[in-house]
Amino acid sequence: MSKWIWFPGSFELYHSMLLHNRRTIARRYKDAKSPLMGETRSMYYQPMWEVSGPEHNVVLQKEATIDKEETIEMLSNTEYSLINVDGVSYPRNVKIKLSKGQHKVVVSGFNAEAFPAFYIKGNVFASNRSYTVLNRMRRGQNAGESELYTDENDKVEIFKFKYKPVKPVSVRKVNRGTLYDFGREQFAKLTLKSSAIKKVTLFLGESEEEALDTDYTQIVLNAEMQKGAYTSNAVAFRYVFIPTTKAHTLSAKLEYLPIVNRGCFKGANDFVNKLWDICAYTMLLNSREGFFDGIKRDRWIWSGDAYQSYLVNYYLGFDKEIVKRTIRSLRGGDPIIHHMNTITDYTFFWLISIWEYYFYTGDKDFIHDIYPDMKDVLAFVEGRLSRDGMFETRPGDWVFIDWSTFDSDGPLCAEQILLARAYECMSNCAKLNNEPEEAVRCKKRSDAIKKKVNALYWSDKKGGFVDSYTSGKENVTRHANILALLFGYTTKEREQSIIKNVIYNKKITPITTPYFEFFELDAMCKIGDFKYMTDMLDSYWGGMLRLGATTIWEEFDPRKKGIEHYEMYGGKYEKSLCHAWGASPIYLLGKYALGIKPTAPGYEAYEVRPNKMAFLGNFEGKVPCPAGEIFVKITDDDVRVKSPIDGGTLVLPSGTYKIEKNKELIAHW
Amino acid sequence: MSKWIWFPGSFELYHSMLLHNRRTIARRYKDAKSPLMGETRSMYYQPMWEVSGPEHNVVLQKEATIDKEETIEMLSNTEYSLINVDGVSYPRNVKIKLSKGQHKVVVSGFNAEAFPAFYIKGNVFASNRSYTVLNRMRRGQNAGESELYTDENDKVEIFKFKYKPVKPVSVRKVNRGTLYDFGREQFAKLTLKSSAIKKVTLFLGESEEEALDTDYTQIVLNAEMQKGAYTSNAVAFRYVFIPTTKAHTLSAKLEYLPIVNRGCFKGANDFVNKLWDICAYTMLLNSREGFFDGIKRDRWIWSGDAYQSYLVNYYLGFDKEIVKRTIRSLRGGDPIIHHMNTITDYTFFWLISIWEYYFYTGDKDFIHDIYPDMKDVLAFVEGRLSRDGMFETRPGDWVFIDWSTFDSDGPLCAEQILLARAYECMSNCAKLNNEPEEAVRCKKRSDAIKKKVNALYWSDKKGGFVDSYTSGKENVTRHANILALLFGYTTKEREQSIIKNVIYNKKITPITTPYFEFFELDAMCKIGDFKYMTDMLDSYWGGMLRLGATTIWEEFDPRKKGIEHYEMYGGKYEKSLCHAWGASPIYLLGKYALGIKPTAPGYEAYEVRPNKMAFLGNFEGKVPCPAGEIFVKITDDDVRVKSPIDGGTLVLPSGTYKIEKNKELIAHW
Repeated sequence: MSKWIWFPGSFELYHSMLLHNRRTIARRYKDAKSPLMGETRSMYYQPMWEVSGPEHNVVLQKEATIDKEETIEMLSNTEYSLINVDGVSYPRNVKIKLSKGQHKVVVSGFNAEAFPAFYIKGNVFASNRSYTVLNRMRRGQNAGESELYTDENDKVEIFKFKYKPVKPVSVRKVNRGTLYDFGREQFAKLTLKSSAIKKVTLFLGESEEEALDTDYTQIVLNAEMQKGAYTSNAVAFRYVFIPTTKAHTLSAKLEYLPIVNRGCFKGANDFVNKLWDICAYTMLLNSREGFFDGIKRDRWIWSGDAYQSYLVNYYLGFDKEIVKRTIRSLRGGDPIIHHMNTITDYTFFWLISIWEYYFYTGDKDFIHDIYPDMKDVLAFVEGRLSRDGMFETRPGDWVFIDWSTFDSDGPLCAEQILLARAYECMSNCAKLNNEPEEAVRCKKRSDAIKKKVNALYWSDKKGGFVDSYTSGKENVTRHANILALLFGYTTKEREQSIIKNVIYNKKITPITTPYFEFFELDAMCKIGDFKYMTDMLDSYWGGMLRLGATTIWEEFDPRKKGIEHYEMYGGKYEKSLCHAWGASPIYLLGKYALGIKPTAPGYEAYEVRPNKMAFLGNFEGKVPCPAGEIFVKITDDDVRVKSPIDGGTLVLPSGTYKIEKNKELIAHW
Repeated sequence: MSKWIWFPGSFELYHSMLLHNRRTIARRYKDAKSPLMGETRSMYYQPMWEVSGPEHNVVLQKEATIDKEETIEMLSNTEYSLINVDGVSYPRNVKIKLSKGQHKVVVSGFNAEAFPAFYIKGNVFASNRSYTVLNRMRRGQNAGESELYTDENDKVEIFKFKYKPVKPVSVRKVNRGTLYDFGREQFAKLTLKSSAIKKVTLFLGESEEEALDTDYTQIVLNAEMQKGAYTSNAVAFRYVFIPTTKAHTLSAKLEYLPIVNRGCFKGANDFVNKLWDICAYTMLLNSREGFFDGIKRDRWIWSGDAYQSYLVNYYLGFDKEIVKRTIRSLRGGDPIIHHMNTITDYTFFWLISIWEYYFYTGDKDFIHDIYPDMKDVLAFVEGRLSRDGMFETRPGDWVFIDWSTFDSDGPLCAEQILLARAYECMSNCAKLNNEPEEAVRCKKRSDAIKKKVNALYWSDKKGGFVDSYTSGKENVTRHANILALLFGYTTKEREQSIIKNVIYNKKITPITTPYFEFFELDAMCKIGDFKYMTDMLDSYWGGMLRLGATTIWEEFDPRKKGIEHYEMYGGKYEKSLCHAWGASPIYLLGKYALGIKPTAPGYEAYEVRPNKMAFLGNFEGKVPCPAGEIFVKITDDDVRVKSPIDGGTLVLPSGTYKIEKNKELIAHW
C-alpha cells in the first residue's frame, strides 16, 4: 500500500508550526488608557520558543530489484516535482512501466508554501518509508510517512480531523443575551446564523462565570457575518455567551481525531468509572496534531506534558501515530538552539519517552528513524553539561520540574536524576541501533550521575534528597525524591526513608499539579502503596469532580473557593480546565489495578499483576497491546484474563500463571 | 524614512529559494523508448545544494528615548502579527501615540508561506535595521532591510523587477514556421496572441541554430492559449522559433533590475567600446535577485561567479544592494552543511568578498550585520581543515577552481592560497568588529598557510607552484600561480619566475573560461603587464565578438568551429552565451586603464593611476565611488581628473598630484 512520503519530520514540523501560531492573547489590558488599548483578546500570540518550518526542497530515492513487472505513477503536492527512473525523468501523473530487474527511482520536489510530498503508486516501489533521503541534510534517513495519509487524494497540508455536531444542553436568557451550555468542554467550530446581526462578539468560557464575565473572558470571537453566517475556527469552550437579544441560531461541530479508546475500565465504584471517562474525554480533546497541553490557552505541544500523554495513551488509544508526531514536532528542525520548549527537564523527558515508546510498542522502525535526531539532541545536552558531566543551568534555560518553589541555588537534584534516566534510555536506543560503544558510554554516564546524586544531594538529617547541594539550606521538595523512587535510583533503605520522611510528611509542600501528582502516584504504586494512589483519586481528582469538572484541570488546590479555582498566572480565568496532564488515572488504573505492563519491548513478554484496592471494589477492564487488548476481571474470589497474545504471565499471591493466547485464564487469588 | 524589515537574511533566502527552483531540465532524452520519455525539457530541475528557506516566526524590537512625541503605526504582510509598545499589545494598522521619553517597541509575526515583514511608520521608531532580533536564534542582530522596499505598499514577497517592451529586429518564415530574432540576448516575458492557435511549442535559442534545431533546443515553452493569449515567465533567448503557419503575434517584455551604469568607458578603439557595452549588457541581464551565473541554464547564484560580478559592479553600477543580497543568499540558513554551492573555493571567495565589499563601499553596517554569519562559515571551514590547519578535501566537497584538469592527488595549491586570503580578509573584518584577538588569530593562520604553500608547493625545476605536493608529478597549471601573483603571496623573485615559466609558457594549458581569465589578467595588470591583458581582450573576447557574440559566453575555445562553440557539459547547446563571469573587461579597464581604485575603505583615500595602452589609444571614462563618479581622460599629452571626493592621488610618471574635490586636475604624463 502506498503512503504519502516526505522529508522525515517535515509533515510534523509544518503542522506544528501552524498550530503553535494559532494561540491568541487571552487577556484584556484592563488598565487601558485608550479604548484600543483595552482590547487585545483574540490578537496573535507568538510562540515562546523557536518553531521550525519544514524542508522545502526534497529528494527521495529507492533502489530495488523486482521479480515481476510493475507500473508506477508519481503524484505530488507541487508542480515543481519529477520522478526519475533509472536516469530518465518524467513529470508527475504519468504511468511508467518497470521491467523485471533492478531499478532506481528518485523523486524530487519543491514546495515553497508548505513542504513537498509524493505518492507513488506501484508494488515494490509504492511510496513508504523504504525511500531514503538524498538531500545532503539527513542523507540516508528513511522518508517520513503517516498511517493517516495513505489515500492518493489526501492533502498533506490539511490535518485530517473529523467533525461531528454537538448540541447545547441548555440555553438561557441572561444579561440581555443568551448563554449556551454545551454540557462539557468542547473543541469545536461555532456557526452563528442570523439575518438581524451584522457583527457580534462571542464570549467563550470553560466556566459559566468566565463566559458571563465579559471583561475577563479569555477567548472572544469577533464574529463578522457574511451573508448572514459566521463560522469560527475550532476553539475551546463549554459555555458561549452571545450578548444580543437579536434572533440567531448557534451550532457547533466538534473537531477531533478519531482515536478509538481500546483501553477501558469499569468497576464497583461509580466515581472511579466516571473519573476514567472524564480522563478519557480530556485526552480525546487534547489528542490532535500532537498531544496538546490544554485546549483553551496554549494549545501547544509541551514535552513534559506530552510525556505523560504518551503513557496514558498506552493504556487508552495505543495510537502510535500521535506519539511519533508529537516526538517529531518537539524535536524541531536544525540547528537545535534551545531545550525543548526551552525547558531542560523537557529535553530529558523527550529522550526518555522514545525508549518507552519502543518498550510499549516494539516499533523498531521509529527508533531507527529518530535515532539520528536523538544523537543531535544528546550532543546539544552534552554541550551544556558541567565539566564532570553533570547538569548545570545555562543562560536561557528554563528549569521547570513543576509549578512549585525550589531551592534553585545550583543545579536541581531532580534535573540530575532525569539526566541520568535520559542517558540510560539513550543507551538502550544505541544498543538497538547497533552502536554498542555509544550504548556503553551512555550507560557509564548514567551510572556516574546516579552515584554523584546519591553522594551530593542526600541529607541524612532530612532523610531525603535535597534540591540543592550548594546552598547548604537542605531544602526538601517531593520532586527529586519521587523521581528517585520512580526510576529506582537509590537504595532500598533510602527509599523507605523517602516514603516516611518526604512522601508521608505533611510538612513537605504537597504537589498541586496533576502533572507531578502523576509521578508521585506512579512511584508510590511502583513500590506497592496503592492506597496512597486511591486516596488521591478520591481527594484530589474527586475534589475537582465534586466542583463540577467535566474535564481535568491544569492545577487544583482544595483550599481555594469559587472562581479562585479558575485563576492562574495572574489571570482571572487563565487556568486551563481541560488539561491533558490530569488524565493519569487511566494509566494508574491500567498499570496497577488491572496490573498490565510489558516486561519486554512491544509486549513480547508482559505481566498481569492485578491488585485488589479497597476503594475500587471489583472491576474489569482492557489494556491495549500491539496486537489487540488484554482483558482482566477481578472478583473477590478470582481473576480472569484473556489476551490476544502469548508471552504473558499472571502474577497473583497464589502463584504465577502462564497466559495462553486467546484462551481465558481463571485463577484464584 | 521607514523600510520594510525582517529577520536578517529572510528576504534574501526566500527569493533565493524561489529562484533556485525555477531552473528546468534543458535537455531532451533523445534515446527515449516511449514518446513520453523523449520530452523532459521544461520539467523541474532540483538545485544541487541545500537551499534554505526563510524564518517564519520573527520578533524584532527597538528601545529608544525620544525627545518629542511621535505617532507610530505597524503594517505587516501577515494577519498573525502585533506590535507591543511598553508592554501593551496592538494589532497592525493602528496609530499609537508615543509621549516624550523612553519606549520599547516590539513587533512579532508569523508567516507560513513566505516570511513575516513589518513596516513601522514613525520618526525615531520608523522601521529599519536599528531594530534587533529577539528570537533566540540570532538574538541581538540587526533586522534585515533593503533600499528597494521603502514604500508602505511594497510587497516583499514580490521581487521588484522592471519591465520594458523589446522588439524583434527580424522576423523570417522558415521550416514552416516563424523565426524571430531579437537582435541580442533577452531575459523577457513572451506573449503570444492568436485566435487560430490553441497550443503550440515555442523553441528559444541563444543562437539561431539552437532555436531551429528543435530536437535539441534547450528552452521550450509549451504555450497553452487562454482566451487567445499566452504569456510566459521571463526566460532567456535571442531567437524564438514558432513552428506554425497559423496567424499570430509575438511580443516580449524585458524583465530587469534598473541598475544605473555609473561607470563608463570610451576610447579610440571602437572594438573596446563595443566590448565594454556588451560586457555591461551581460551584467545587466545577470543582475537580478542576486548576481546570476548565466540567464539560460542555471540562473543560479554561484559564489565564485558572483565574486567576479561584485568586482565588475564596483566599476559599473556600484549597486550595494545586489552585492549584499547575493552574499546573504549564498550564506544560506543554519545549519551550514556544505560549502557554498558545495564548492570549497567558493566558500573562500565568499569570505574574501565581504572584506572587498567593505573596501570599495565603506559600508561598515553590513560588515557588522554579516559578521556573525562569517564566523559560522569560518567555523564550518575550520571543522574541515587538516590537523595543521591546511585545506584538505572532505567527502562531499567539490574542488572546482576552474573547468580545467588538475593533478588532484592531495589538496590543491590553489585552494590553500584562497584559504590564506580568506583568513586574511576574516582578520580584517574581525578587527573592524572590535575582535582584536580573533583578528590576530586569523592573521597568524593566514601567514602560516602562506609559508607552507611556499615551502610545499614550489617547484624549482618548474619555476612555479605545482598543483599537488603529494603526487610527485610536479604538474603545473596556471591557476595557483595566478592567485599567488594576485594576492602577492610569494617573493618578487618567484613572481618573475612564474611570469616567465608559467604565464608566458605556451606549454602550460591556457585558461579557457572567462572566469579564470579574469584572475589571470587582474594578476598580470597588477604586476604592470598591460599588454598581456589587451592582447587577450583582442584575441579572446575579440574572438567571441567576431563570431557574433552579443553577450559574453561561458567558455571560449578559439580552436572550435561553428556550432561546436555552443556545446558544453555534453549538451549540443548547453553552453551559456550570456555568462556574467565574462564581463571582467569593465573591471580591468576601470582599474588599470582609467587606473582607479580605493586605497582606504570606501574611497576615504584612492588612487588614480591611468595607464597608456597602445591597443586602446586615447580614452576617457568614469568609475563610481560612494559619493559619485570619478572622471578620467587621457590624451597623448596629459591626463584630466575630476572627482566628487577628496582623498585622491593622481599617480603619473611625472609625479603624484593631489586631487581636489570637484575641481578638474590636469597633469602632464
